[in-house]
Parts: sequence; C-alpha cells; structure tokens
Amino acid sequence: MPLFLNNDDIAQLLTMKDTMEALEILYGEMGRGIAVTAPRSDVHSPTAAAESAEGPMAHYLKSMSGASPHFGTAALRFSSDIVAWRDSGGGMRREKLPMLPGNRWMGIVMLFSSANGELLAIMNDGVLQRFRVGGANGVATKHLARQGAETVGLIGSGWQAGTQVMAVCEARRIKKIKVFSPTKTNREKFAKETSERVGVEIVPVESYQEAVKGVDIIVTSTNSRTPFLGKWALAEGMHLSAMQRDEFDDEALLSCKPLVLHTHATENNVTSSALAHFERDNFKLRDHPTDRGIDWKSLPTLPELVLGKIEGRESDRQITGFVNNIGMGAQFAAVGKKVYDAAKAKGAGREVPLEWFTQDVHP
Amino acid sequence: MPLFLNNDDIAQLLTMKDTMEALEILYGEMGRGIAVTAPRSDVHSPTAAAESAEGPMAHYLKSMSGASPHFGTAALRFSSDIVAWRDSGGGMRREKLPMLPGNRWMGIVMLFSSANGELLAIMNDGVLQRFRVGGANGVATKHLARQGAETVGLIGSGWQAGTQVMAVCEARRIKKIKVFSPTKTNREKFAKETSERVGVEIVPVESYQEAVKGVDIIVTSTNSRTPFLGKWALAEGMHLSAMQRDEFDDEALLSCKPLVLHTHATENNVTSSALAHFERDNFKLRDHPTDRGIDWKSLPTLPELVLGKIEGRESDRQITGFVNNIGMGAQFAAVGKKVYDAAKAKGAGREVPLEWFTQDVHP
Repeated sequence: MPLFLNNDDIAQLLTMKDTMEALEILYGEMGRGIAVTAPRSDVHSPTAAAESAEGPMAHYLKSMSGASPHFGTAALRFSSDIVAWRDSGGGMRREKLPMLPGNRWMGIVMLFSSANGELLAIMNDGVLQRFRVGGANGVATKHLARQGAETVGLIGSGWQAGTQVMAVCEARRIKKIKVFSPTKTNREKFAKETSERVGVEIVPVESYQEAVKGVDIIVTSTNSRTPFLGKWALAEGMHLSAMQRDEFDDEALLSCKPLVLHTHATENNVTSSALAHFERDNFKLRDHPTDRGIDWKSLPTLPELVLGKIEGRESDRQITGFVNNIGMGAQFAAVGKKVYDAAKAKGAGREVPLEWFTQDVHP
Repeated sequence: MPLFLNNDDIAQLLTMKDTMEALEILYGEMGRGIAVTAPRSDVHSPTAAAESAEGPMAHYLKSMSGASPHFGTAALRFSSDIVAWRDSGGGMRREKLPMLPGNRWMGIVMLFSSANGELLAIMNDGVLQRFRVGGANGVATKHLARQGAETVGLIGSGWQAGTQVMAVCEARRIKKIKVFSPTKTNREKFAKETSERVGVEIVPVESYQEAVKGVDIIVTSTNSRTPFLGKWALAEGMHLSAMQRDEFDDEALLSCKPLVLHTHATENNVTSSALAHFERDNFKLRDHPTDRGIDWKSLPTLPELVLGKIEGRESDRQITGFVNNIGMGAQFAAVGKKVYDAAKAKGAGREVPLEWFTQDVHP
C-alpha cells in the first residue's frame, strides 16, 4: 500500500550518508546511460489570484520524472504553486506564494516500483529537495576536494545551507566552518543549531570576504543573481562548491581544473505558457536569466567525474570546482527509495489503499 | 479536501454532453492561445519483470499536463505501467500488462485549482480517457457533419467505441448505426448494450464494407496500424470521424475538405529512455510508427475549426474528415473540472486531507 510521508517523517528517515550513497550510484548509472532523467515540464497559466495583485502572477504546475534501474524505481515530482514576479533589484525574481490553507505550499514526489509499476510512496518534496541538492554537492566534494581539507567558508544560512554543511562534513573530516549571511541573527542562529547537529565548530563572521579567507573549501548556498566571488577569493588547493551558477564570477570558475557541472540532462526543459506575451514584454519567466561568459555545455558533468571518464584532482595545489546548475527527476527515484526503505523498516508514514490509484481498465 | 474519484464514480458523474461542452470551450481557448498544453514525457526504464519475459519489456512512466483558464484548472495525468512489445503481425505493438494486485493498471489524473494551486481531485483516468477521445470526435462531428446526417457506420466495438457512439449521437440526431468488428459475439453484445444506452438502433453487420455502405458518417474506433478504408468507402456528403491516423488511407483522407487534425500541440512529446538501443535495433517504442503520404503538420486543427479560423463544411455534397491524432493534457483540466463539480454537487468520492499533500516550506 502506498505510504504518505511528510517532511517530518522524511527528516527522521533520511541521512546525508544515504543520500550521497544513492546519488553516487545514480550518477554512475547516468554516466553509463542506464538511468533516465526526463526534461522538466513547466506549465504557466493565468490565475484568478492575479486580479488583486500588484505585479504579474501565474499558476505554475511543474513536473519532472526519471528512473534509476539500480534502485528499481521511477519518480514523478510535481508542484502546483501561485507564483509572482517581483523586482528584486537585480532583475525580476519569481516567488512562490503560500496560498494553501495554513500558508502552505504543495510539492510532491510520487515513487513507483519499476518491477511492477506500483505506486510506493507519496512524499512531500521539501526535505528531499534539500538533501538531493546538498548531496549532489557532497558527492562532487568527495571526488574533488583535497583529501586533507578541513576548513570551510560558507556563504548563506538559509533552507539549503544546512544540508550543504551536512554534505561537506560527510565528504571530508571538517574541523571548522565560517559562515556569513547578511542578517546577523540568521547566521548566528544557523551556526549554533547546525554546529550542534553536525558536531563541528561553526563560527559566524561579518563578511563573505572573511568567510572565504584561508579555507580549504568554499560552499555557496545563496539565491544571488549577480556573481559576488571573484578570483580574489581563491587560494591554491581550494575546492569551490557552488549551489547555483551565479555565485562565482567567470574568472573564478575558469580558474578551476576541473570545473564540473551537475548535469546537461535537463537542458531540454520545456516551458509551456499562455503567458508568453508576459515573458516577451515584461519580465523573464525563467529561473536563470543571467548571461555568463562560460560555455556551460562544454563542461564535464558529475556522472562523468564519478565514473572516472574525466580527470579529477591531480595535485594538492590545483583549484577544483563544482556547479550544481539544476536538478534531475532521477535523483528522486534514487534518494526516494532510500526514504521508502527506511520508512518500511520503521513503520513510518500513513498507508492508503493502492486500489484507490488503480483501475481494471487501461486507456 | 482532495477527492479520490474512481472510474465508477466518474462513469456516474460525467456525461458526453458535459464533455463536449467542456472540450469546445477548451478548443476555443487553445485557438486563442489562452489554454496551455505541454509536451508529454515518456520515461522508459529497465524492469525486473523482464527477466521472465519472452520479448522486450520496460517500465513506462508517462506524464502530461495542461491548463484551462476558463475552468480555472490545471491537470497532471500520469500512468505507471509495465509494457511489453509483441509482434502483432503488422509490426511491434506495445501492450500494457496488468501487473498490479487484482490484475489492475494505474493511470491517474490530478486536478489543481489555478486560483490557489490547491489539489482538487485524484481521479482514475480510464473513463476520462474514453470520454475525452469520444468527445473530441464529437466536437469535430458537430462542426463538420451534414446537419441532416442520421446514419452511422462504426468500425470497432472495443473500450473506446461506446463513447464514440455517445459522441456522434450528441452531435447529430442519429437514427441508425451499423457496427462491425471482427468477433461476432463482441459486435452483437456491443450493439445490444450500446443501443439501450443511447436509445438508437444499432445493427451488427458482417463486414466493414457493409458497415460503411450508404451511411452519412463513418466512425472508426480501432487500433489498426494498416489503413483499411479507402476511397471506395466514401460517398458524397459523408463525414469521416477517425479515432487515429491509420484507419483511412491517404487517398480517402485527402478527399476530405476540410481534413482536420485534433492538434499539433504535442508534436514535441519527449521520450526519455535507457532502452534506446532496443528502439534502434529491435523494435519501435513509439505508438505511431507508420509512415504515411500525408503532411500532417500542414493540416488545420480542431481549435482552428471551432474558432472559425478555417472553413468547415460549405455544402451538403462535400466530404469532411477529422483525425484524432493524439490527446492533450489540457483536456483533463477542462473535462476533469466537470467531473469535480458534479462530484461536489452530489457528495461523491473519498476525501483525504489536503494537508497530506502540502508543506510549510517550498524548495
């Protein structure tokens, strides 16, 4: 019977170790052309909510899917949100509004068995999302950072930063982390809570310049649309672990050898919209409008690195880099299976009859 | 709270009249560029079930989505099936195997409100699928057949044929239907049951040649991969209503004025597969492998016909035609809302807490 698993359940069940193990296996499958990840489909349509809004708004139905033969699973992730575009100074930014009762959002991962097609679980996607993003950076750090790396400079203290810390601590024996984020109370709270969680000293600092100074690994976890870390921040032997494209500038990224991208698999993502005139005339619907001087398509990817198809770090002196440009549906098939197995072992979640989802005909 | 609605519920709630009304509104929206339909995503991956199989098999996760602003809804339809390719004589054909407990399949439509993103309903897709296919042909017949058309020749007596009859009877005042399908008992059973349902005389006949002779409208509802109806079957003033591309031959279809296709909207459907070598070497993964001498992309579509952007029938003498080449996610947004409204009005379905699907974070 399918299990409903909410974020609290998943936070109890999923470890960063399991996440990174699952992702490493998945990247191996992807590098060998065995796992499958499909382009994301984004449907934007008019929303009645827009009538009372100041700026442009839309209903946004997102879906992505993928499969991992090793785990014997496929996953479909979808979310249904009211989004608004707001001018954040550095360009229009899309915000998801908590329109559901209790100021909530909806994002779901459905996990299927590829042995018989059965629906195994219906999971909130919030915790999974944090872990799969952190985990991808963690796998890259494991393959690229110096073996003896023990200090980290972290920029950002938001929702994603916690799993980034868990991941870097899983990849290397980290002894000290400096963290900067613009709001003092946020970085102090984050440092205290996360330090207790991972058992590593975390020190809040006053600037991002201070955070990155003299560390072995720089970890970024921001939603910046303007690169703020340049070559000045780099030192011999460093590893750069970026959560998205617009944190390190071109010169800094091109100093890395190798510079590895998460994936090219979702470059064919499809945006379907009845709001095309909005996009053309008024604002960018896309997440990543920034033009950069880097030919992203030419970069090697994490699956190639994991499989040894490209050279990783060859000396303790070179600077390595990883950019987690975008996610893949297949990650949810792999990591979701870890959650599902743990839930079954511990009796977690709420069961609903599989029969509710099945039928005695097929169209 | 989201409603689970199964096929029995939906069969009680949905009428062909409602279906055709909803689709006609949707096609108007599509013609004006307001409704949204996204490419379908097909993920094929290896399945453990294949180990005991004779022929090639795969797990097949299909998803499609779309939105209808008029109905204030978006829909995500997905299915998870074990499929096998079998040589049917006229080429490899994909079969969905009933691998779930009770020999069942799984196909689901999730319906969302575009006002606040809320999940409204989780519906089996079997009955909806029959109605939206029949309904599309019905809308085309309403716009193309002679006003006085009253006789029908139907080829096929399977799962889809019943809604095709309901649709043609909704579009015109039909007095008599001749039906042919290869198995005598099937066509006789179909004629008896469907006649009682629609209140129109239905006569089983011995051949498809006899079925189409002297009728005003030919309705096909087969899974043929080889066209079997040629120009010999046509007569002045007829309307041809085809459920798929490979029933009428090129010459017959090109005799139609106009010849209208359902949609071009899903020509960008995406197949993602780790089984590409199977496709290349052994068999066709796609549904429609047949090469035809028709430039499908040049044909006008049902949304254009509904909006009056193309000429329909101009005299009682010309032959008109419609080919329901493929479905669209947006159909489920429109027709699904009719089902949902009827369910709410009648208190049908099983409620589950919306909170099970929502979360206090957004990734």
